[in-house]
Amino acid sequence: SRNMSTIADFTSTGRKVICVGRNYMDHVKELKNEIPKSPLLFFKSTSSYIRSGGTVLIPPGSTNVHFEVELGVVIGEEIKDCPPDKVMDSVAGYACAIDITARDIQEVAKSKGHPWSIAKAQDTFLPVSSFVPKEKIADSGNVGLWLKVDDQLKQDGNTSDMIWPVPKLLSYISTMFTLQRGDLVLTGTPAGVGPVTAGQCMTAGLHDISGSEIKVSVAQKDRLGFDWNE
Amino acid sequence: SRNMSTIADFTSTGRKVICVGRNYMDHVKELKNEIPKSPLLFFKSTSSYIRSGGTVLIPPGSTNVHFEVELGVVIGEEIKDCPPDKVMDSVAGYACAIDITARDIQEVAKSKGHPWSIAKAQDTFLPVSSFVPKEKIADSGNVGLWLKVDDQLKQDGNTSDMIWPVPKLLSYISTMFTLQRGDLVLTGTPAGVGPVTAGQCMTAGLHDISGSEIKVSVAQKDRLGFDWNE
Ligand SMILES: [Mg+2]
Ligand SMILES: [Mg+2]
Ligand SMILES: [Mg+2]
Repeated sequence: SRNMSTIADFTSTGRKVICVGRNYMDHVKELKNEIPKSPLLFFKSTSSYIRSGGTVLIPPGSTNVHFEVELGVVIGEEIKDCPPDKVMDSVAGYACAIDITARDIQEVAKSKGHPWSIAKAQDTFLPVSSFVPKEKIADSGNVGLWLKVDDQLKQDGNTSDMIWPVPKLLSYISTMFTLQRGDLVLTGTPAGVGPVTAGQCMTAGLHDISGSEIKVSVAQKDRLGFDWNE
Repeated sequence: SRNMSTIADFTSTGRKVICVGRNYMDHVKELKNEIPKSPLLFFKSTSSYIRSGGTVLIPPGSTNVHFEVELGVVIGEEIKDCPPDKVMDSVAGYACAIDITARDIQEVAKSKGHPWSIAKAQDTFLPVSSFVPKEKIADSGNVGLWLKVDDQLKQDGNTSDMIWPVPKLLSYISTMFTLQRGDLVLTGTPAGVGPVTAGQCMTAGLHDISGSEIKVSVAQKDRLGFDWNE
C-alpha cells in the first residue's frame, strides 16, 4: 500500500508534480520574460515520469523540445498553509529532474492565453534521478546543477541564484495546493536551456551528490496510425 | 495497495485529473472565446477533490469563483495512443463533477500568457459525486447534467452538445498523456456558468442517474497568519 512503500518510490506513488517557472534571474532574462511578482506555478503529470536509462520522445506536434535541469523536492509529509520557517521539516529529500518543454507549443499557448499542459506534461517529459535523502544536501540554497547534451555542457547553475528559494516556494505552494507524501516540486531552471533532437543523449545531475545522475536518450515519437478526430 | 482498492475510491487512488475547456458550443459563446481546433487541455489536482457534503473555499486571492458542472469519466485501465472506437473499453465509469474556477485569476493568467493552475486546481476546487458504474450510462453522448445555486437552476445541459464527444476526447488525450486507472477526465461544461459566494449552497447531478448527486457549501478561506515571502 501507499503507506508501506518507501519514499524512494515517489514516481510510482506520488500524486502530483508542481513546477515553478522563471525562478532563476538569468533564465528569466534569456527567455526575455518579465520577472513575476509571485512564483508562476504549473503542473506536470506523474504519467510523464521516466527514470535514468529511459528515452524522451519528441511528439509529432513539436520541432523545438527543450531541456531544463532542475532541483526536485520530494515531499515526505503533508504541507498545508505552512510558513517558510517550518516547511523544510516535511521534506523527505530531493531528486535531479529535467523539465522537458515543447517550447514551440508553449509559445503558441502563451500567445493565445491557453494552458501550458501539452507543452509541459506529455509522456516522457519528466526524467528524474533516484531519490536523494534529505541528509545528503545540507543547504537547499547551495546546490550546483548541471546538464550536458552529448559531451557539451549546456547548463551549470546553482540554487543560490533562485528568486524564491525552496522554503518560500514550498510555503507559497502550500497556501493553495496541499502538498502530499510523494509529491514532487520542481524549483525552476538556471540559464542555458536549449533544444535536443532525436539521437542525442542528455546527462544531468547535482554537483557532488552521488546518486543524483540522470542519463536519457532522445528519440522521435512516431505519428499515430489513426485520426483521433474522425 | 492500489491494485486491491476498488475503483469507487478513485479520488484517493487516482493520480491525475485532466480537463477540457470549451467543449460545449453555447459555453464557448457565453465566454466569447474562439472555437479551438483541438481540445484545450489542462490539469486539476487530485488534492483539489472534495466529496458531497464538503465545502468549497473561496481563496483570499479571488472575488469571482465560478461553478462549471461537468461529466467526469473515470478510467479503469491504461489508455495510450488508443483510437476513438476502442477507447470506451477502458472506461470504468463516471462521476458528476464541478470544475470550480477562479475566473478573475484565470482572466489575468490568460491575458499574460501564464499557466491556469492557480485558477483551476486550488484545494477544494473539485467537488465530485460518488462513482457511477459504466453500466448506468448507456450512452455518454446523451447525458443530462444540471447545477443549482441554492434553489436556482443555473445549468441544464446535455452531453449531446459537446464539440468533441467522450470517445474522441479520450483518444486525443491518450496520444499525449497516458491515462491510468483511477484518473478522472472532465469533459467540459455547458452554458450557464456563474459566480458563487460564501454562504451559498451548490447542488448538481446527472439527470436520471441515481448516486450522481453532489451537494456542497461555499465559504470564504481565511487570510494566512504569515507572509510566505518574508
Ligand atoms: Mg496531477
Ligand atoms: Mg522548468
Ligand atoms: Mg471546465
